[in-house]
Amino acid sequence: MNAFILETVRWRDGAVRILDQTRLPREEAYLELRTVDALIDAIRTLAVRGAPAIGVAGGLGVALSAAAFEGDDPARLCAHVDASAARIAAARPTAVNLRWACERTRGAARAAGPGEAGEIRARVLAEALAILEEDLALSASMARHGVALLPDEGRVITHCNTGGLATAGGGTALGVVLEACRRGKRLFVHVDETRPLLQGARLTAWELARAGIPFAVQCDGAAAWRMQTGAVDAVLVGADRIAANGDTANKVGTLGLALAAQAYGVPFYVVAPRSSFDLTLADGEAIPIEERDSSEITEWQGVTWCPPGTPAWNPAFDVTPARLIRGWVTELGVERPPFPPAGKSKG
Amino acid sequence: MNAFILETVRWRDGAVRILDQTRLPREEAYLELRTVDALIDAIRTLAVRGAPAIGVAGGLGVALSAAAFEGDDPARLCAHVDASAARIAAARPTAVNLRWACERTRGAARAAGPGEAGEIRARVLAEALAILEEDLALSASMARHGVALLPDEGRVITHCNTGGLATAGGGTALGVVLEACRRGKRLFVHVDETRPLLQGARLTAWELARAGIPFAVQCDGAAAWRMQTGAVDAVLVGADRIAANGDTANKVGTLGLALAAQAYGVPFYVVAPRSSFDLTLADGEAIPIEERDSSEITEWQGVTWCPPGTPAWNPAFDVTPARLIRGWVTELGVERPPFPPAGKSKG
Repeated sequence: MNAFILETVRWRDGAVRILDQTRLPREEAYLELRTVDALIDAIRTLAVRGAPAIGVAGGLGVALSAAAFEGDDPARLCAHVDASAARIAAARPTAVNLRWACERTRGAARAAGPGEAGEIRARVLAEALAILEEDLALSASMARHGVALLPDEGRVITHCNTGGLATAGGGTALGVVLEACRRGKRLFVHVDETRPLLQGARLTAWELARAGIPFAVQCDGAAAWRMQTGAVDAVLVGADRIAANGDTANKVGTLGLALAAQAYGVPFYVVAPRSSFDLTLADGEAIPIEERDSSEITEWQGVTWCPPGTPAWNPAFDVTPARLIRGWVTELGVERPPFPPAGKSKG
Repeated sequence: MNAFILETVRWRDGAVRILDQTRLPREEAYLELRTVDALIDAIRTLAVRGAPAIGVAGGLGVALSAAAFEGDDPARLCAHVDASAARIAAARPTAVNLRWACERTRGAARAAGPGEAGEIRARVLAEALAILEEDLALSASMARHGVALLPDEGRVITHCNTGGLATAGGGTALGVVLEACRRGKRLFVHVDETRPLLQGARLTAWELARAGIPFAVQCDGAAAWRMQTGAVDAVLVGADRIAANGDTANKVGTLGLALAAQAYGVPFYVVAPRSSFDLTLADGEAIPIEERDSSEITEWQGVTWCPPGTPAWNPAFDVTPARLIRGWVTELGVERPPFPPAGKSKG
């Protein structure tokens, strides 16, 4: 295993083992999740986060529910798996990968036919592990396609965390940067801190420092000024859901970043696996946007800075219209809408 | 005195008394500054902040230096006042009001001629107090002109803090909103939290709650999404320095906000007194932009969230090009470049 590949989500001894991202960068601690409730809680609290990573975690969660089911009746096991898959899929509404992975693992149980419960459990787990392995391969493919978009020497801006921590261990947008540097490109990364939960300042900074790549964190509001005052060669972001026309839901702040990139002529790329595309949606209007608790904005780990009772509006995502996006880097290449159906991705 | 008017900066018993903004909103505490060094420290640490407020504080600081000078030799007193004024003016580089107020009070000492030291001290203090009184009047004038730009009912976005806390006690951009609501307009204010120092979340929220005006804090990166998803009627911001062509330096994040406002057709106004204009500069290129310590980004009151040693880029301001600004609300009206020289403002 490549030393650069993080073990963000894994199946270990009958449990889902995740690197607890709420504790990074202070400590590299892992959670062993043995129940569906614990897994849902980890997804909701962002202990595991990033659209591909929560897809992988969701699939493994469905396997967990099959393994934990007491009884040998295949029909009741399948019904239990269906119910668990639905609960897990609802843990976060915006990223389509979660729903997709739950549906796929649930389908594997159904496809096992009226066999033994043991076989159903094995099939569900095999499907979940296949999603995990595929995700690692997808990261490698996206990185390969994306590297060609970057100069041999230059500056990029990235938002949120889209590295190994956002996937099974490779990365989407940051994965492209990591791979480019591994191949000898000399890139400087301007890291949006990404309010409110500071995934850039906490997680992307941690990944870049670990990889020895030069970077500086900046306030999200400073990105436009960065483009005005210095040559920025590209903006790379991930995605939580992409509609058929290319409208892209991603971490809040992405839209403003894309508007600034357009104003300064900086190419703006989305890097995401085909499992983040939701071709059932014509455009971004129909993408549900999760609103999270206002306390994520008004305080940090118990330290509050607002007057008591301050209301805050906390959409977790925004939708960037397709016209602001130069290209979508997927495992299939650098794509543009209309996107053909991908079938089962092979990485 | 209007109960809405904050006593942000005042002269009290031979000292400069300021409302300590580093302790808001947790407590409403005042600092009694009796030395130039203490005053410079208060400006540098942002205990007093906002271009007009630091102008007023700077002028009173020059008066403080005159009062504290031991000796009766007029020439030596004037030399001392000159030196103090230069030191105070250098405390923060971007806001031109500070330099302007120091220059004006220093000039009052010189204009006193070869009189007695006591008269020089009195003239310097009188000039500083005149700046303070004028600033209150300027706020009232800007509010009067700005109110007409706002609908009777609607939504505005504001960045940083531009209320009473940013001036001697009235306000620039937020002062317009406060006055509009006082006159019965029903406005909802979307408050950019304003990273890194959270002047929106801490100070603007405190002022709006105090005035009973409905608002919600949002992450700076959410402003574009706010404009995309809901009707925003105007964006109002303050300014730290405005060049002759209208290019406007203001709190970092303003440029991105202006680009988003342009993209969504939302009128974007700058509200600032004529003392924030620097007509000696042809355009924004020459405005010096203060870079502050990276720890303002990487930690909050001792709680750090970045990996140890994380580099951060912390420009305190950015420059918004004039083409993105619909109008400049000053004490003289709603202006557009070229701006005629204002002479001595009368409010």
